[in-house]
Amino acid sequence: MKVVIVGGVAGGASCAARLRRLDEKAQVLIVERGPYVSYANCGLPYHVSGVIAEESSLLVATEQTFRSVHAIDVRTGCEAIAIDRAQKTVDLLDVASGAVTKEAYDKLVLSPGAAPLRPPLPGIDLPGIFSVRTVPDARAIREWLGRSGEGAEASTAARRQRAVVVGGGFIGLEMAENFVHLGLEVTLVEKMDQVMPPLDAEMARLVERALSGRGVKLELGDGVAGFRQTADRSLEVLTESGKVHPADVVILAIGVRPETALAKAAGLELGRRGGIRVDEHMCTSDPDILAVGDAVEVKDFVTGQWTLIPLAGPANRQGRIAADVIAGRDARYRGSQGTSICQVFEAAIGQTGASEKLLRQLGDTDFEKIYLYPNSHAGYYPGAKMLTIKVLFRKSDGRLLGAQLFGEDGVTKRLDAFAMAIQMRATVHDLEQAELAYAPPFGSAKDPVNFAGMVAGNVLRGDTPLVHWDEARGFLLDVRNLPEVAVEAVPGALNIPLPQLRARLGELPRDREIHVICRSAVRAHSATRILLQNGFQARNVSGGMLARAHRIAPR
Amino acid sequence: MKVVIVGGVAGGASCAARLRRLDEKAQVLIVERGPYVSYANCGLPYHVSGVIAEESSLLVATEQTFRSVHAIDVRTGCEAIAIDRAQKTVDLLDVASGAVTKEAYDKLVLSPGAAPLRPPLPGIDLPGIFSVRTVPDARAIREWLGRSGEGAEASTAARRQRAVVVGGGFIGLEMAENFVHLGLEVTLVEKMDQVMPPLDAEMARLVERALSGRGVKLELGDGVAGFRQTADRSLEVLTESGKVHPADVVILAIGVRPETALAKAAGLELGRRGGIRVDEHMCTSDPDILAVGDAVEVKDFVTGQWTLIPLAGPANRQGRIAADVIAGRDARYRGSQGTSICQVFEAAIGQTGASEKLLRQLGDTDFEKIYLYPNSHAGYYPGAKMLTIKVLFRKSDGRLLGAQLFGEDGVTKRLDAFAMAIQMRATVHDLEQAELAYAPPFGSAKDPVNFAGMVAGNVLRGDTPLVHWDEARGFLLDVRNLPEVAVEAVPGALNIPLPQLRARLGELPRDREIHVICRSAVRAHSATRILLQNGFQARNVSGGMLARAHRIAPR
Repeated sequence: MKVVIVGGVAGGASCAARLRRLDEKAQVLIVERGPYVSYANCGLPYHVSGVIAEESSLLVATEQTFRSVHAIDVRTGCEAIAIDRAQKTVDLLDVASGAVTKEAYDKLVLSPGAAPLRPPLPGIDLPGIFSVRTVPDARAIREWLGRSGEGAEASTAARRQRAVVVGGGFIGLEMAENFVHLGLEVTLVEKMDQVMPPLDAEMARLVERALSGRGVKLELGDGVAGFRQTADRSLEVLTESGKVHPADVVILAIGVRPETALAKAAGLELGRRGGIRVDEHMCTSDPDILAVGDAVEVKDFVTGQWTLIPLAGPANRQGRIAADVIAGRDARYRGSQGTSICQVFEAAIGQTGASEKLLRQLGDTDFEKIYLYPNSHAGYYPGAKMLTIKVLFRKSDGRLLGAQLFGEDGVTKRLDAFAMAIQMRATVHDLEQAELAYAPPFGSAKDPVNFAGMVAGNVLRGDTPLVHWDEARGFLLDVRNLPEVAVEAVPGALNIPLPQLRARLGELPRDREIHVICRSAVRAHSATRILLQNGFQARNVSGGMLARAHRIAPR
Repeated sequence: MKVVIVGGVAGGASCAARLRRLDEKAQVLIVERGPYVSYANCGLPYHVSGVIAEESSLLVATEQTFRSVHAIDVRTGCEAIAIDRAQKTVDLLDVASGAVTKEAYDKLVLSPGAAPLRPPLPGIDLPGIFSVRTVPDARAIREWLGRSGEGAEASTAARRQRAVVVGGGFIGLEMAENFVHLGLEVTLVEKMDQVMPPLDAEMARLVERALSGRGVKLELGDGVAGFRQTADRSLEVLTESGKVHPADVVILAIGVRPETALAKAAGLELGRRGGIRVDEHMCTSDPDILAVGDAVEVKDFVTGQWTLIPLAGPANRQGRIAADVIAGRDARYRGSQGTSICQVFEAAIGQTGASEKLLRQLGDTDFEKIYLYPNSHAGYYPGAKMLTIKVLFRKSDGRLLGAQLFGEDGVTKRLDAFAMAIQMRATVHDLEQAELAYAPPFGSAKDPVNFAGMVAGNVLRGDTPLVHWDEARGFLLDVRNLPEVAVEAVPGALNIPLPQLRARLGELPRDREIHVICRSAVRAHSATRILLQNGFQARNVSGGMLARAHRIAPR
């Protein structure tokens, strides 16, 4: 059996190593267009700044490792340019020499990844404009900034102080942060009116504040129209709104598109999202050709929709499953749930499962959302930080649909608990009962994940009807204490501190729905319960003043 | 409806607050023997050292909060001394005045907690010997050590430099750590031959090293026989083996026993483990009396056995469920899985589900264990720390049974993922497919939880038979590189570095089982696969040299 693997990073590398362990006799060839296999492209932004000091650290496994440990043949600088499915051969171009050879396969695995989008904008090929996908990309940026190289050239480069990052996704945010670490002035230009497109906008708002707080200048809702070189050979980034952002270095990080040219030319089925279509065994429409990683469409685990999720974790697991399938096993990929996390200076933003915007796009109305603001660990132990958590769940059966989390501590602990819960099709009632790690330095007796389940459970059981800020047009009752109200009052709200509520029910209307406000919706929950049991119509304003502070005004 | 709650911490406080939210009209009385309700007893060790500076920080909710916010009556310094189940009354002793009153109830909730064990050893009542259960306990220790108080007395106290902690459970470890923070010389005496009794001994070994590394003197396998006062009014701790440990302060932390006197005198059913027996609704054998928290026996979620799990998380959730049940709802407690975590200086030790020793005690042989040593996050990103993970799973169906984790980073992330997986009855195959948070500062594309699932899956599918060190008596093959072997060789093992293995198969026996060794069992997995596919009998020595370094020698 001969297996040719096109693309030697993440999915391809993972597939090759697994295949060798399953089948000592298989002949395995990895072809990789670039100079390196199995490198850590997720680390590239951190290498640009020197947080990861050595380029060699990024090379997870070398050609030599594949050869000596796995008896796998590797050809770098080698591009697969055509597949003859009838003959079961693939044409390989040696990039350096231009020579083309034909390689037979029994099974072909496509792991070509996704390429950074480079729209044909004026000036896009000017020197100083970079993508961040490969080790040579990172090296080129470092050289341009004088972070490697020597003497006069480096000192010219070291005067390059103004960075414009185009695109506010993972790579854009990571590059912005690492440029700040280098002491550059950073402007982030993003066409959407939020960073981190998979997030809901009000959660992205928190990320935007963290970026602004560290001096990143945000230009949201403004696309890039082109680039030009100035007389002093620096750059200008021109936007659709007519702005001009001077730049000494520009990072293009506006997204990626699956590398499907080879698959398409071979007549393999593509999906509507533009990725290679595969079944749960990672097989393409040709059963002898499998595909994995950023180039394929996957089923969204929560919504069941086809989607593109270009992340390293799924790519690695898909590669492993492809190897199992080639080795004759009944391995199946269950779909992707989009679990992701991104460092934003001191904080982290994490997400798993469906977002509100995705559910709305699908026309789904059978969901509710909650916001909560618990401490990352027991408040009485030093160093606790406030977490912001948004949780989406199905109204009809309580199933957990998605979670988004932001904070300076304790994000990963909860994100992974939510991610595992979604994978296991947990309901919010399972979250109520979850038994998670607690000691004062690490959590709380009621962990934020429990707390999320309890809040959601209270909503589902009808104990505490919710209203969101953009619908809170009832009689506004603010149950915070006077000092809190003195700092920030809600226009039009009557203030009755919670401890006085039972004695002052006579001040409240019986003919209008009362929308109850406090700092984080905890006291308002108690107040709502008091009101409901006293015959009032009442709803808790979800997330309270803390949610108000990062909500997106309704359009 | 009148509800009397005996015990105002954790479970009792949680029950009271929830009950009020569900039933505005119920009459709720909390009686608490001590001076405070709803205090953070988990924080007490950290207050002794001043890590938590203010005693007031430990008071989560005061009597005043219960009265003003929840309209709940609280009597502190008030002990329930007898229950008349026929009349549905409880006798309450005012501790200060000695007056006894009778209080009627419709529902009674017992949340008396568990008391520190104080065996009748000679000298146990000498001054300077403390338990750590209540705020006054912590205050007394601080005063004894001169951490609060003034003048000459404080300066005498400040010369108290030698601490003996008796008992190596959570409280003992936390007290040892906090005494080290205070600059005391600390000796930890533990009757068992390991610290942290719920852990398997080889995992406890890691904790013991962390303690020793910070100067804690460990005296394991030696029980305390008594205490005596010396001429200079300091203490000596006498052990069963005849040792004498001088001490200026002694902490007794040898465990707790459920406070069942009241329940027992009332004729309520107790379990064989000595706790109050309750059903899944937290009802005792008297349907009008519920019980929650450290005083009750719970079903072990994994094994189904009755057990005692005195932890704050379960107590809080049980209190909430008791409130739901009193309010007429069908709430059920699912059992406890023993998820716990403890800080050990820079490191954390965590556990969830069943331990190997527990499974063996139950005579269960349908399980396998694995050890793994992954990085806490991508190795190429600075600050990655090695995690030690032990995972137990069912051989017959792959169900995850338990996990134990030790490390200086990333323990909570994985512990909560394992805990949620166990709760949802996940198999190791679910772990293989889990989609967890990854970015270089936080994880790896193959998260340690995935990795655990993959290793376990390889075992279950028969791809890599395991052998544990205490059974590794086959032909020993060490596939590490020469420099590694030079540092530490395995006596009797043949060294063939993995890259040379295929070329040197002729040096290996075909008539003996080959037990393959490397640093962490990753390369040995590849080697085992090579050998098996070449017709050898081979097993991977689980956990490799890293497991060898903390294994417990078989007895």
